[in-house]
Amino acid sequence: MYHLPDVRAGRSAALQADAHDPLAHYRDAFVIADPSIVYFDGNSLGRMPIHTANHLQHVIHQEWGDGLIRGWGRGWYEAPARIGDKIGQLIGAKPGQVLACDSTSVNLYKVVMAALAARADRSEIVSDALNFPSDLYILQGAIAQFGHRHTLKLVASRDHEITVAADDLYALITPNTAVVVLSHVTFKSGFIYDMQAITARAHAVGAFVIWDLSHSAGAVPMQLDDWHVDFAVGCCYKFLNGGPGAPAFLYVNAAIQSMVESPIWGWFGQKSPFAFDLSYTPAPGLARFLAGTPPMLSLSAVEASVDMLVDVGMSAIRAKSVALTEYMIALYDTVLAPLGFALGSPRDATMRGSHVSIRHPHGYQINQALIAEMNVIPDFREPDNLRLGLSPLTTSFVEVWDGVARIAEVMTNQRYQHYDATRKAVT
Amino acid sequence: MYHLPDVRAGRSAALQADAHDPLAHYRDAFVIADPSIVYFDGNSLGRMPIHTANHLQHVIHQEWGDGLIRGWGRGWYEAPARIGDKIGQLIGAKPGQVLACDSTSVNLYKVVMAALAARADRSEIVSDALNFPSDLYILQGAIAQFGHRHTLKLVASRDHEITVAADDLYALITPNTAVVVLSHVTFKSGFIYDMQAITARAHAVGAFVIWDLSHSAGAVPMQLDDWHVDFAVGCCYKFLNGGPGAPAFLYVNAAIQSMVESPIWGWFGQKSPFAFDLSYTPAPGLARFLAGTPPMLSLSAVEASVDMLVDVGMSAIRAKSVALTEYMIALYDTVLAPLGFALGSPRDATMRGSHVSIRHPHGYQINQALIAEMNVIPDFREPDNLRLGLSPLTTSFVEVWDGVARIAEVMTNQRYQHYDATRKAVT
Repeated sequence: MYHLPDVRAGRSAALQADAHDPLAHYRDAFVIADPSIVYFDGNSLGRMPIHTANHLQHVIHQEWGDGLIRGWGRGWYEAPARIGDKIGQLIGAKPGQVLACDSTSVNLYKVVMAALAARADRSEIVSDALNFPSDLYILQGAIAQFGHRHTLKLVASRDHEITVAADDLYALITPNTAVVVLSHVTFKSGFIYDMQAITARAHAVGAFVIWDLSHSAGAVPMQLDDWHVDFAVGCCYKFLNGGPGAPAFLYVNAAIQSMVESPIWGWFGQKSPFAFDLSYTPAPGLARFLAGTPPMLSLSAVEASVDMLVDVGMSAIRAKSVALTEYMIALYDTVLAPLGFALGSPRDATMRGSHVSIRHPHGYQINQALIAEMNVIPDFREPDNLRLGLSPLTTSFVEVWDGVARIAEVMTNQRYQHYDATRKAVT
Repeated sequence: MYHLPDVRAGRSAALQADAHDPLAHYRDAFVIADPSIVYFDGNSLGRMPIHTANHLQHVIHQEWGDGLIRGWGRGWYEAPARIGDKIGQLIGAKPGQVLACDSTSVNLYKVVMAALAARADRSEIVSDALNFPSDLYILQGAIAQFGHRHTLKLVASRDHEITVAADDLYALITPNTAVVVLSHVTFKSGFIYDMQAITARAHAVGAFVIWDLSHSAGAVPMQLDDWHVDFAVGCCYKFLNGGPGAPAFLYVNAAIQSMVESPIWGWFGQKSPFAFDLSYTPAPGLARFLAGTPPMLSLSAVEASVDMLVDVGMSAIRAKSVALTEYMIALYDTVLAPLGFALGSPRDATMRGSHVSIRHPHGYQINQALIAEMNVIPDFREPDNLRLGLSPLTTSFVEVWDGVARIAEVMTNQRYQHYDATRKAVT
């Protein structure tokens, strides 16, 4: 597939790799407003596909402006399930198991509450200290809702928050475990959990699993159906390029849909929303996990973008992703490690998602200097991670080269020292 | 203010009323793609302001396409509170008490769960049989979450679901009432509850109130602060013209914010979202009622539209609304009542929101015939309501005249009999 550019051969090798990249032309399918920017944050907010901008014109003017309320009879009503099925093609889920709706937090709340209610005789929840804090907050909130009957057991990392040892995790999974809740790819280090093995371990003791796919959907292949995953949630604004704050998705395996229930009994989850019965009866299948009316402008942007990813296919996307992170780590070894950075991501590509974290005690200041002075946009994650997101369809090899060169420059000229180390609310 | 057109003077009187309408020019600020359509469904999905379409271009191309992740530092992060404060100007709420976020159903869930937790010693919830069923579903779901400890008491209408007698409602409010949950304007008849008096009654026994403003925000003035309302939620896609499935809003009175908590502990409701602490601490004020990342495309459309309503002001909007519904009822009396319709809304304008319901045993078929053959778009609500929404900034007097004339035509030629009376999922 990909021949990695030789890091000693300089920028031209990166350009040559781009010339041979079978996915390189997809970059032209995205809006690149300022080509001088090195965008290492597609794992926080993906770039905008040109097709999405065009599709939004259609939704704004034809569907809303012209169609008005008739839009609900012309595809809006089915949108959460229709778009969910398309996302399903990216994550190994057959139709009828994925909905695009609400935020990741709200969806996680729904499935956590559903799982705990369906395992009411168990009092332990297993997660990890590497998980996205919002996921842990949702778990803590659910525990409060259930009257503080549950213990939240967090497996710790032995290698400074880069990976988790499987045995350490398995040691926490017991016959008293109600549910195991983990991010498939961790948000700081990009570590990939072995979803199939962990799901099997949880099932062996009768526990449910909930996987947060926010950092893997659209970047890392997976087979939710084949691996018998119970629940999953995920974000559509990262590698799915669905736009700022795009509606999220949730997955509920067909085998358990009739046994579990959302805590939020909204009309879109009711058996017959337009019968206006006064008593709630959940929809027979997955739809019971819908709540209120979906935000169609934002949801439409998700569909336009996911259509493109489905066309490309996950194995081609993954091949490019691995090549990009391998190249980044090769540059880290030759350029960044000598400048005082430590690698914050796994070296083994099979254990790594589509971003590379580099760590530095002055990471917070370096991040500011890169954005303000070097036209490089990474993001910073406490305490010392500079996250370098490499988005398979939009990041080029030469962008990786240029980004690393600029990081080296800001270290060499020590410009980062001019920035404040005091944390602000929004980074 | 408004001199109503004389119904016996025909269409020209309606045109004359439009010529003298001080708000008539606002219709030109909206996209009217097909002027031949009589749109009586602005109370289900408001028309699109031209300014909104333009603002969305900016959000799509400049904010997302060009700004990328930097958008969060350029106004996105504050958007739920900033837009909430603007909505606050329409509903009598000082800044810091309204958030634009999530769906109405999810917001109602959040405040119902918060209210029940804060009144844990009480076991009754009061609502009505006229309420939007989704609101009742949320209440039923919340009751299930709390282990079926609560009784849901629904006051019934004595006049075929048009109004509720205050005494009937007050009889249900007791020292065991945890919360009274009502729609300010009911979705079928458009009946306006006396928010101030009912809130005072609930407070007299120590109960909370939650008002659903979906059918009143942007159409009916109210003073949430002055009337000491505890909680409110509402929809932004009806009279607020925020677009299909637009994010909703919630209000929590400043006096109680620190005493109540959302059940959904997401990172946007955490004290310091970007500190990434592993333990949740709710934000000190209103922000604790946020959950996940807001859908910025849909949310931006809300802001553009609300800006316009704030400029117009609620008293001018209400004056036009009352004139439109008064005119509609005058036409009902002379044209529609003789054709077999019954009035499904209060005659007293002080008790009526911005839509008029007309009832007919063949309403379901008449609704279909009007849409398919007459270019009139009302909506149908079981069992027999044709809801005629009159949106103050976009509905003209001549549109009311034309709509009624076309309804009369479809009755006279009996075309409605060609349509199926069997209910379908989406109407």
